[in-house]
This record gives sequence, C-alpha cells and structure tokens, in this order.
Amino acid sequence: MDIFQVVGTLVCTLRVSGLDHCSLRVLRDAKGKLQVATDPVGVRPGNWVFTVNGSAGRYAMGDAKILTDLTIGGIIDDWETEVIPVSATVAS
Amino acid sequence: MDIFQVVGTLVCTLRVSGLDHCSLRVLRDAKGKLQVATDPVGVRPGNWVFTVNGSAGRYAMGDAKILTDLTIGGIIDDWETEVIPVSATVAS
Amino acid sequence: MDIFQVVGTLVCTLRVSGLDHCSLRVLRDAKGKLQVATDPVGVRPGNWVFTVNGSAGRYAMGDAKILTDLTIGGIIDDWETEVIPVSATVAS
Amino acid sequence: MDIFQVVGTLVCTLRVSGLDHCSLRVLRDAKGKLQVATDPVGVRPGNWVFTVNGSAGRYAMGDAKILTDLTIGGIIDDWETEVIPVSATVAS
Amino acid sequence: MDIFQVVGTLVCTLRVSGLDHCSLRVLRDAKGKLQVATDPVGVRPGNWVFTVNGSAGRYAMGDAKILTDLTIGGIIDDWETEVIPVSATVAS
Repeated sequence: MDIFQVVGTLVCTLRVSGLDHCSLRVLRDAKGKLQVATDPVGVRPGNWVFTVNGSAGRYAMGDAKILTDLTIGGIIDDWETEVIPVSATVAS
Repeated sequence: MDIFQVVGTLVCTLRVSGLDHCSLRVLRDAKGKLQVATDPVGVRPGNWVFTVNGSAGRYAMGDAKILTDLTIGGIIDDWETEVIPVSATVAS
Repeated sequence: MDIFQVVGTLVCTLRVSGLDHCSLRVLRDAKGKLQVATDPVGVRPGNWVFTVNGSAGRYAMGDAKILTDLTIGGIIDDWETEVIPVSATVAS
Repeated sequence: MDIFQVVGTLVCTLRVSGLDHCSLRVLRDAKGKLQVATDPVGVRPGNWVFTVNGSAGRYAMGDAKILTDLTIGGIIDDWETEVIPVSATVAS
Repeated sequence: MDIFQVVGTLVCTLRVSGLDHCSLRVLRDAKGKLQVATDPVGVRPGNWVFTVNGSAGRYAMGDAKILTDLTIGGIIDDWETEVIPVSATVAS
C-alpha cells in the first residue's frame, strides 16, 4: 500500500459507467507524481492517506463492480517509529 | 488510476484477436513516457484522461474478453484543489 | 499497454513446463530496459510492438494456462498524432 | 517479492472496514521509498523483511477478505551469496 | 517477464506458512535492484534467469497455493539478436 497526500477532487463529466457516483481524489506522492483514487472514506485536501491497489481496491469500495484500480484505505493519523540499531545491515 | 494526455491513435494491422474493433490510443504521462490504452469513451488528441489498469480495465470496456491491461476511464474537465496547510507534515 | 522494440529471441533450454513451445522475445523500451514476452503474433527483430501484461496477457496467448505475464499484442505500423493545443494544460 | 526494512507502525483511526484488526507496518526500501504492509508475522522496527504483493498478499494473511495489496512474508535472517564468475555476462 | 542474475539464497526462519519448503532466491536486475523469487527450476548464483510475476507466478510453482508474487521461469542460455535497421524509427 502506498502513501499519498490528497490534493483535490477530479471533475469528469464524461467517464465509464462503472465509476458512476464515485468520488475521485487526486493524490500526490513524495516525489510529486499524481494518481487518481476512489474514496470510500471521505478525505479532505491535505490529508495523508494510504491506498490499496488492484482487485483489493475494488473490494475496498464495498462493491466489486466499481471499476477502480486504486482506493483510499484510510487516513493516516501518525506513525510510531523507533530508532533502528546500526547493526541492522543485512540488506545494505 | 493514472493521468495522461492523449497524443494519437495507434495503427496496428497485425494484432491478437482479442483486441479486434478496439480503438487504441497513445497516451503520454507527465514525464513523457508513452502508453497504449483501449478507449470506450471516445477521446481526442490533447484530452487529459485518467486510466484504469489490470482486470478492472477489462471490465471497463464493457466486455471482459477484451485483452487490454489499460483502459481510459474518463476525460478530465478540471480538478478542484485547496491550499494545503503547512501543518500537514506527517509523511514528509 | 507498453511500447517496445523487438531485439531478439531468448534461448532457454531449462524452463518451467507451462511455457513449453512458446517463443520468448527480448524487448527493449525507450529507456533501454529489457523485458521478455511471449509472442502469439510472429514478430521480427526491429519491429515496434505493444504488449499486454497480467492475466490479460495469458488470455492473449489463446490458452490461459500459458505461464506468461507479458504478451505481444500487435505490431505497430504507425500512429496518427495531431498538434495538441497549448490551452490543454489541466495536469501541467 | 521485495526487500524492505521495517520503520514503524501506522496509526489510522479511520480506515476501510476490510482492514480491521490488522497491524499496518511502514516499510522503507533501499532507495528510501515508504510502503505500508499488513503483518501476519509480527515484525519489529529494524527488521529486514520480504513482502508479497497482489492477490497472493491477501492469501498470505490467512483470510482472503483482508483488503491488502502488500503483506510481509517473512523476516530475513541472512542470505548466502557466492562469488559470481566474470564469465556470466549474458545480459550485460 | 523480467531478466535478473541470481545472487544468492535467502535464509528466513520466520515466514508465512504458504511459503514452506520453497527455495527463495535473491535476484539482482541490471540497475542493481534486489528482488526475491521462488525457484521451481533449481538455479545457481551467477545464472541469468527470467521471472514470471503475479498470479502466473503462483501457477508456475506447480501449486497455486504457494504465496509468491515472483517465480523463476527459466535459465537464460543466450539470446539471438539481429542488427536492427535504422529505418525502424516509429516510436523514437
């Protein structure tokens, strides 16, 4: 699952029928690349979110007929990190 | 779902039978990379579109037997953005 | 679907049984990255082709038991482009 | 399957229902890119792990209804390498 | 399908149950990026191999319950190339 920041909402009057009634959010990753995702959660611009891709993304919409390949899975509140010891160098 | 600009239409006289009768569009992303997508919407060069990949892309053609891995999902009219507050720095 | 140029044919005497009797082509993308694809079309070195990935690539072989993740979908003759107006700047 | 180092645990009070009760780990690859994965193994920050993506990642959770696209498959203890002879230059 | 060189064997005492009894190889691509793949072929460090990803990779193990997303498909002996004529400039 990837980490993105919400930047806005897509306006698309002409789209395939399998995406009717879905909110489409524009997301931006750490490198500035934009992606579009369906939103079953209700996010707002500025939120950091994680996304689910592939067939799991369709199921995450609560309706496997929704024709998405990327769905917002949740809003990130925070994450807990610990200091990683220097000895952890297996895959350096 | 990815964001592309339509640059043209592919001419392929020799192709696999599962793509008969499909319009194949050449798309270009923000970095200039080209991709080919099936088009159930009817786009024109210069349009900005979003695409659906994987099995959802086949369903988006209205016929899961179409052998595509990328389908145009809609034409982007615009997108609404808001100013993102500086405090939103979780995943910086 | 991606765009590649055919550079040759792979010689693999030891391979998994689900790829028996398949021609395996070596392809090169615009950045020089190499990929291997099954070939139901009959391509030749120098041809520009587009490829279908994932499960659609298996179906494109005409036999879903072929264990490929990338199949050549057709030979590109040409593509038609139009001048894209400067006003098309939504996703700049 | 990809190789990552565990950097922490994600805190998400608002998420889709298909991820209830799952631990979500934040992982970092060799280039510093962050990903989120479900964790059926029980990892700790600093561990090096490999991940399974796509539908196999859902099955790896022991419950195909878990809406993940990336699951931790195991903790890497070490890997054995051998000196690779200079003559192995096929794909140089 | 991607091209890699085998660099070693992964040692993982703690892993998900769906990968029991599988040899896990560490592979390196042309840019030095490492990946982990299951090995139904029996490769040795230094071999150049091609890999099959996604659900086809599970089937290639001869048992679709193996929880892999990348499987070694064969050992590359060589590949035949031809000089590509300068006139082949469609997608330049």
